[in-house]
Amino acid sequence: MNLPPPADPGFRQRVHDSFARQGVMHTLGATLETADAGRVVIVMPHKPELAQQHGFLHAGIVATALDSACGYAAFSLMPADAAVLTIEFKINLLAPARGPWFRFEGVVLKAGRTISVVEGKAWQHEAGGPQTPCASMTATVMTVQGRGLTH
Amino acid sequence: MNLPPPADPGFRQRVHDSFARQGVMHTLGATLETADAGRVVIVMPHKPELAQQHGFLHAGIVATALDSACGYAAFSLMPADAAVLTIEFKINLLAPARGPWFRFEGVVLKAGRTISVVEGKAWQHEAGGPQTPCASMTATVMTVQGRGLTH
Amino acid sequence: MNLPPPADPGFRQRVHDSFARQGVMHTLGATLETADAGRVVIVMPHKPELAQQHGFLHAGIVATALDSACGYAAFSLMPADAAVLTIEFKINLLAPARGPWFRFEGVVLKAGRTISVVEGKAWQHEAGGPQTPCASMTATVMTVQGRGLTH
Amino acid sequence: MNLPPPADPGFRQRVHDSFARQGVMHTLGATLETADAGRVVIVMPHKPELAQQHGFLHAGIVATALDSACGYAAFSLMPADAAVLTIEFKINLLAPARGPWFRFEGVVLKAGRTISVVEGKAWQHEAGGPQTPCASMTATVMTVQGRGLTH
Repeated sequence: MNLPPPADPGFRQRVHDSFARQGVMHTLGATLETADAGRVVIVMPHKPELAQQHGFLHAGIVATALDSACGYAAFSLMPADAAVLTIEFKINLLAPARGPWFRFEGVVLKAGRTISVVEGKAWQHEAGGPQTPCASMTATVMTVQGRGLTH
Repeated sequence: MNLPPPADPGFRQRVHDSFARQGVMHTLGATLETADAGRVVIVMPHKPELAQQHGFLHAGIVATALDSACGYAAFSLMPADAAVLTIEFKINLLAPARGPWFRFEGVVLKAGRTISVVEGKAWQHEAGGPQTPCASMTATVMTVQGRGLTH
Repeated sequence: MNLPPPADPGFRQRVHDSFARQGVMHTLGATLETADAGRVVIVMPHKPELAQQHGFLHAGIVATALDSACGYAAFSLMPADAAVLTIEFKINLLAPARGPWFRFEGVVLKAGRTISVVEGKAWQHEAGGPQTPCASMTATVMTVQGRGLTH
Repeated sequence: MNLPPPADPGFRQRVHDSFARQGVMHTLGATLETADAGRVVIVMPHKPELAQQHGFLHAGIVATALDSACGYAAFSLMPADAAVLTIEFKINLLAPARGPWFRFEGVVLKAGRTISVVEGKAWQHEAGGPQTPCASMTATVMTVQGRGLTH
């Protein structure tokens, strides 16, 4: 889908600043690798303290990183005074999330005035090794203005 | 929907043991409050290190606790030698997750031989105060046997 | 969740009028049974011309009736000049949709100014017989005003 | 994702035969345009008898065609004696479905022994005109063997 140009030329800094305020990204050990217009990539390693009972990364943690990638992909196209809130997301787990490294990408499918739809994909890989898909998300996010939310 | 009786009379212990092995539940500060047949409740407090940029509990963390509640609700009805894996889930965020306390409930809607469907609801409340809904989930989980997965 | 009272006292007539304009409901042979505030019920029989390859009602047709039930449940609470549009829905099929009769119920979970979340349930039954669940939906719908859409 | 080769070399005929048995595809006026390994395309025109109250193709009918495209994309990779059943799907509506022509594509993302995940996309266009996206689906389908289901 053709996306509109970013409404705010300072969108990269705005995405980086907001990401830095997400306490949960520090807890996950997640890093913001790319913040393009309509596309965001987050990377992180596996950690036992984020695992489910079989030792795989918990599906909800995969969803946490993917939701941030999707939300910031949409946020990158929003006006400078807007905040982003997730309305809903759906995730399919394609393979046990063994890691040891993960890559989460959000790409905007539709950027509406109020509602944006974003597709997220997660991959896992050995350091330097080939990436294999481990999850797929669709997220619906909302542009929020005038409600006193910081970015 | 009428649910079958639990296939394993020791299901409560099995759910508690598996929950204790989820490293991520310790990280979240989550506690298993109830493990009934087809119904599981998890509780946890808000923590800044699990927040998104506005200070609300990150949608993915809400999803993490709800997914565990849903997964274990289904697991409670499974045979003693089965493991549970989440195939997919969808979550709607109904209100900003301010806390300070959260309650996550998973209730089995359909318990199939291979596929189970579970509904999850999240509420937030002040200590001793009334609970208000903050999220709703539907999860599809799989009964896995003979693949060498521990519970 | 506590729902607000209907914004338009003439909501029942408004729902019935809009339903009558849905050409697809005629094609399905669907009838609007109940139009309460925040809750709508639609009924219909099985028909071979709506079946998939095994003779069951096609999952998409189950979704069509459920989406209308969900959309009108939200519409019942909206202002008199508003239109309703579905943003997204997710459906789980719980049993093969054999019929011969189906009942589709939409109940509003959250009625927001812009976004509403609605839960849908489908049941099937013999005439006069007990109802068994066959599908479960969550739908996100939008209140649209000032875009020139009729109801 | 790398997909396995089709388990049945006669998969094209099998998909066409099963599609022809879907009564609902005749009602929709839908045609099977492409049946490749892991990828199926269905086309259809807009019809007033499939519309919602504003004259757009009903979201559930978009979902019906997309679900068939997704289901048959997965079915194309299944063994010759298998049937396909939809477990669940989620759809985002990206634009009002005005038509006059629609194209529905299902592409397999993961082909598992029991569970497959398929992505669906819908486009609309004037005859000979450019296609614009109108919906996006993720479907989870099941390979069913030994339950007496015809294809």
